[in-house]
Amino acid sequence: MEYSKQLKKLGTETAFAVSAQARAWAEKGNKVYPFHLGDFNLPTPENIVEATLKGIKDGKTGYCPSEGILPLREALAYDVGSKRGVNYEPDNISVQPGGKPTIGKFIASVMNPGDEVLYPNPGYPIYESQIEYQGGLAIPYNYVASEKGFGIDIDRLKYSITDKTVAIIYNNYQNPIAAESSIEEMEAIAELAIANDLWVLSDDAYYEIIYDGEARSIVSIPGMKERTVILYTFSKKFAMTGWRIGGTIGPKEIIKHISKLNVNAESCTTHFIQAAMVEALNGDQAGPQNLLKTLKDRRNATVNGLNAINGINVALPRSTFYIFPNVNNVMKEKGMTKVEELQLGALKNANVSFCTRDHFGRPSKDELDYFIRFAYSGIDVYDINEGMAKLKKYFES
Amino acid sequence: MEYSKQLKKLGTETAFAVSAQARAWAEKGNKVYPFHLGDFNLPTPENIVEATLKGIKDGKTGYCPSEGILPLREALAYDVGSKRGVNYEPDNISVQPGGKPTIGKFIASVMNPGDEVLYPNPGYPIYESQIEYQGGLAIPYNYVASEKGFGIDIDRLKYSITDKTVAIIYNNYQNPIAAESSIEEMEAIAELAIANDLWVLSDDAYYEIIYDGEARSIVSIPGMKERTVILYTFSKKFAMTGWRIGGTIGPKEIIKHISKLNVNAESCTTHFIQAAMVEALNGDQAGPQNLLKTLKDRRNATVNGLNAINGINVALPRSTFYIFPNVNNVMKEKGMTKVEELQLGALKNANVSFCTRDHFGRPSKDELDYFIRFAYSGIDVYDINEGMAKLKKYFES
Repeated sequence: MEYSKQLKKLGTETAFAVSAQARAWAEKGNKVYPFHLGDFNLPTPENIVEATLKGIKDGKTGYCPSEGILPLREALAYDVGSKRGVNYEPDNISVQPGGKPTIGKFIASVMNPGDEVLYPNPGYPIYESQIEYQGGLAIPYNYVASEKGFGIDIDRLKYSITDKTVAIIYNNYQNPIAAESSIEEMEAIAELAIANDLWVLSDDAYYEIIYDGEARSIVSIPGMKERTVILYTFSKKFAMTGWRIGGTIGPKEIIKHISKLNVNAESCTTHFIQAAMVEALNGDQAGPQNLLKTLKDRRNATVNGLNAINGINVALPRSTFYIFPNVNNVMKEKGMTKVEELQLGALKNANVSFCTRDHFGRPSKDELDYFIRFAYSGIDVYDINEGMAKLKKYFES
Repeated sequence: MEYSKQLKKLGTETAFAVSAQARAWAEKGNKVYPFHLGDFNLPTPENIVEATLKGIKDGKTGYCPSEGILPLREALAYDVGSKRGVNYEPDNISVQPGGKPTIGKFIASVMNPGDEVLYPNPGYPIYESQIEYQGGLAIPYNYVASEKGFGIDIDRLKYSITDKTVAIIYNNYQNPIAAESSIEEMEAIAELAIANDLWVLSDDAYYEIIYDGEARSIVSIPGMKERTVILYTFSKKFAMTGWRIGGTIGPKEIIKHISKLNVNAESCTTHFIQAAMVEALNGDQAGPQNLLKTLKDRRNATVNGLNAINGINVALPRSTFYIFPNVNNVMKEKGMTKVEELQLGALKNANVSFCTRDHFGRPSKDELDYFIRFAYSGIDVYDINEGMAKLKKYFES
């Protein structure tokens, strides 16, 4: 009795270890300021809860199609298409139990062992894990900081493309660094994808967490719709991370493959939750609108709190619920050389919990800067201010 | 832009095609008698629905641990362990979005490409699909009919074991044929597993759909707990197939691997549904008891109806909600040589819809008998009787 050798290539989300540390510290009687997890301390909108109960009462408790129920695929096709200026039909949609399943299923659909896939690093750690677990080569591309925020190192991305490259994973409105592409940057990526005939996974998890102005999608650029698969999730927009519902959206042929993977992996996504998501998309939008207002206030408080600390200077991101400060100066003042030391120190001395750059993919050897990540979706403004004051004291001490 | 070559090895559940045929026939204005799908026309028990709503109101709408919430793992460890006479702890449990995910994750944990896995054929088609998709060799074992029902061909199973064999998939209380192992048969399988140091996946989907007496589990046999992984599902016992909740239960080390696969595949299973399952296991059991009574009446009606047909003779199975009659005589009388012909004929001439043997794994070349499968979970006794009368007329015509 042995285990599969491939399990050794399987990564994980090490950020859960930070949650465990925070929980252990709280259990000792400390008030922890939780900036570590991209989860909510806010309820799911009431109309969604009512629609869920109605779905159960209406008997939507049995199996449903592996690709998802037609009314939800119709609603998603219209909603996602109209918000990106493209036309989608129900056959472009495969409903999933969350946003994350799209990552593994996309890679399973387009990659053979030995193929290369480009992915953002720092980035959501499951990209790297799934590429390597499925026998591919995970080739990172990175971001360069400027006063306006972070931008993709397009030159490095370009020179990383080889004849083995099959796909680029692109997470505009990015976790963990809140980066957003300029029009030029997005067009440059599209151009590279088209010139090299690559698939693109557009991780749109934060596409509707935009505080000012409109979101832009790479799928809108001519030549991109036919090569782009969108990771869609209800988790962030409707404060429903634990409900596990999302979708894969893309060309009909790949969606057919992905729905066949659904048949083999989990049969279908919870039936009555699918029915409730039709209400989420087509019903009263007060819930997500209020959520966005609340998050905007939290963003402002977090950015102000961080910029009040000597040696920290962050831009105001237009999207996501993350802030990714460079802490080189703080580390230097404290004589620290490992960012985990700062993270644990902040928990023990200021009761402030956050993740570090190391929780978002393997750092490359040429990275010289230290970064930490704040999530402000699970902490209210009062506690943000209180926590930031304590953090300032610790960071400046 | 190409697709992964491995997708060509991915199978599916062809039974969904039968559902589509039945739906199309019903849409033409026909009253269809649905014996094709192992799903329910019965509601989920009310106490579970109430606990679900309470979970949402209590804010169980955010992420939870990938292995499942502790109260549910505690409840499952006690319930599954005590019903099988073994001791399980929470670390023996990994909660899943349904019963099915255990199949793919078990294979991913114990099989390398080129390894062989034994599986029942006829059997649940996802076994064959997942073994082959993940690069293994799917080696079927089969059943022999007797007057008491079906038994596993243990000699063939024994001689199919090679030095490449890593696991046996064992589905006692079997879909589609409702087979149940004698004590001797179960011990013979355990002996083979131990002697050859094999993993066993015990698909216990129907373990609590037993109409008389007690269920028996292979995990209770000494030497088996340490090599057995149980596929557990809430779907059948509580009439909640569309809720998508189940669990993987086994030795702690493999469960750790499987929970790491959860992190990569779907993060976690719906949080508030997990909370409701604690009520399902520990609360009022009137729901599943009534369900079992209803199913027993349906079983009796289906078996009586089938045995009233000239040339059909089925035993009364103690478990599952399937009946698997041999239709050699009917085929012969009708001069048919393809069982699909009979299936389509029954739909068009008697409005009766059922699956055939061919929907449950690839038939081997030496199979000479014709079988069809009736599921009675989604049709009430009145309609069973009415449908069976029509079927008798068609089969005997």
